[in-house]
Amino acid sequence: MSQPESRQFRLIRRPVGLPKRDDFEFRVEPARPPEAGEVMVGVEYISLDPAMRGWMNEGKSYIKPVGLGEVMRAGAIGTVIESRAEGFAAGDVVTGPLGVQSVATLAAKDCLKVDPSLAPKPLFISTLGMPGMTAYFGLLAVGEPKQGETVVVSAAAGAVGALVGQIAKIQGCRVVGIAGREDKCRYIVDELGFDAAIDYKTESVPDRLRETCPNGIDVYFDNVGGQILDDCLARINLRARIVICGAISQYNSTTPVRGPANYLSLLVNRARMQGMIVFDWADRYPEGMRAMAGWLKEGKLKSREDIVDGLDNFPETLLKLFTGENFGKLVLKV
Amino acid sequence: MSQPESRQFRLIRRPVGLPKRDDFEFRVEPARPPEAGEVMVGVEYISLDPAMRGWMNEGKSYIKPVGLGEVMRAGAIGTVIESRAEGFAAGDVVTGPLGVQSVATLAAKDCLKVDPSLAPKPLFISTLGMPGMTAYFGLLAVGEPKQGETVVVSAAAGAVGALVGQIAKIQGCRVVGIAGREDKCRYIVDELGFDAAIDYKTESVPDRLRETCPNGIDVYFDNVGGQILDDCLARINLRARIVICGAISQYNSTTPVRGPANYLSLLVNRARMQGMIVFDWADRYPEGMRAMAGWLKEGKLKSREDIVDGLDNFPETLLKLFTGENFGKLVLKV
Repeated sequence: MSQPESRQFRLIRRPVGLPKRDDFEFRVEPARPPEAGEVMVGVEYISLDPAMRGWMNEGKSYIKPVGLGEVMRAGAIGTVIESRAEGFAAGDVVTGPLGVQSVATLAAKDCLKVDPSLAPKPLFISTLGMPGMTAYFGLLAVGEPKQGETVVVSAAAGAVGALVGQIAKIQGCRVVGIAGREDKCRYIVDELGFDAAIDYKTESVPDRLRETCPNGIDVYFDNVGGQILDDCLARINLRARIVICGAISQYNSTTPVRGPANYLSLLVNRARMQGMIVFDWADRYPEGMRAMAGWLKEGKLKSREDIVDGLDNFPETLLKLFTGENFGKLVLKV
Repeated sequence: MSQPESRQFRLIRRPVGLPKRDDFEFRVEPARPPEAGEVMVGVEYISLDPAMRGWMNEGKSYIKPVGLGEVMRAGAIGTVIESRAEGFAAGDVVTGPLGVQSVATLAAKDCLKVDPSLAPKPLFISTLGMPGMTAYFGLLAVGEPKQGETVVVSAAAGAVGALVGQIAKIQGCRVVGIAGREDKCRYIVDELGFDAAIDYKTESVPDRLRETCPNGIDVYFDNVGGQILDDCLARINLRARIVICGAISQYNSTTPVRGPANYLSLLVNRARMQGMIVFDWADRYPEGMRAMAGWLKEGKLKSREDIVDGLDNFPETLLKLFTGENFGKLVLKV
């Protein structure tokens, strides 16, 4: 077998503000042959997620930063080229932290074999992958919505937000999504069945929250932080639950993070604000995947992928997450 | 029976910043005779609490604001002068929202009869009263400390903080208190048995938290908000619990409340921040009072009251809470 080449983006500089192409080095090098217990995978679809911005920063976080000189970390799906691990064979389709590269060599135990006949491949890094599990466990296990309650979600047309809203509808909740463009707002109401949408770029969020949540907010699933978090805090009900899943408005900020000035609403309303990281639920992924796959099959969950072609476009494509340009789960096709 | 007079402080203006004497009107008027179901009470000790500052503000909160022209709300203990309520007789000692006045007439159902042979009267508005119940339920039911964990509490020499720390010690936790004067810091360590104290006025809180909490913070009981909340957020452990009980650093601020810039530590650490209001636990006060009385008797809980004589001194005495001048539970003796 001729040695395959891997085209790779390596992180060579810690970005200040928005990541730039110069923060990465594009390299083509021979793929490392697998050692015992490893597989070599031809990467097909790479998941681009807001969390990646955090992994580029130095300092203690829930996962260690990507080291300078290392291939940029990313979840992905691909096909095994060569295996030296039991239970894995060439031709198997796997998901895992394959990274921003065309060929990855990694421990088989970090990979999950999936059945590609069940769904199109990009779905395994979207609704049935990390964003799906984030929405499922973040909403149900941390947010604990009850039938008839009002759930608000920000970045509502994004990979996680769109699923959170649809799962909340399945639970019998009133669902309001906050998104940043008219077509996104139309999509979450007309296509996904949200009860209302707020366009934060053109509408007053406080006014629209008052109109669309006449009974207040019971669960707020926060993907954005900043002013929208404060606006929601001002409308929460007694014993409301705020799920802190992300803070995309703050990730590229070069000034200190802005704290929620209305946090004392937690005191007044005996409410809680709780952080969640999807990896904590790894033991329960099978449950989450079964539920999500079932709802997909029943037509209760819709999934939209924004697939951009060409590994070379990685740095610019990633930016779409932070400019609000992407629409649906952002995926890079290798 | 000659009609008694009531000396009263009525709120006549919503304070801006620190409350001033001019925000109140001192009046002497005939006490209202009780109607059916009411008692008339001679007020003896009035509890002065940081929460009173919030009650003076307009706007929705967990309890309605004191109306302009109304007697300032306050918890207190006194002796029934005249009763028209079943189960209450002249001479009974009661606690309740008697207000900042010398004679109160109110519904007997809002009063709790106590046995004055069990403890000195001020204790019923301190360790066995609202501050005691706040510490007991706030720490145990919201903070959920486990043996061996590290608990940090701010305003640690105050009415609630001193009890939180002592209850945490009883639970087998390592306890660090943050207070604002050397004698207070000495007191919580030497007299109350805290493991360490941090003087936020003269020491670097981040440095001292690093030294005194080598294993991080599992529970932070926050009475102050502001920079200290941020400093503690920076040191929390995985799955830490932050109890938001108050934010005395912000109550008199004339600029917007400062939100905790480090709130994303909740995300990184999958931690929660939760508000608590003591009134929610009213059904369980008997349990709390039994436990606290038992610990008092066993010598495991110490109580310190800062008793100021003279109803007339109310406005100036209240300020001691906000300047950090008081030491122990602040009580006004009528």
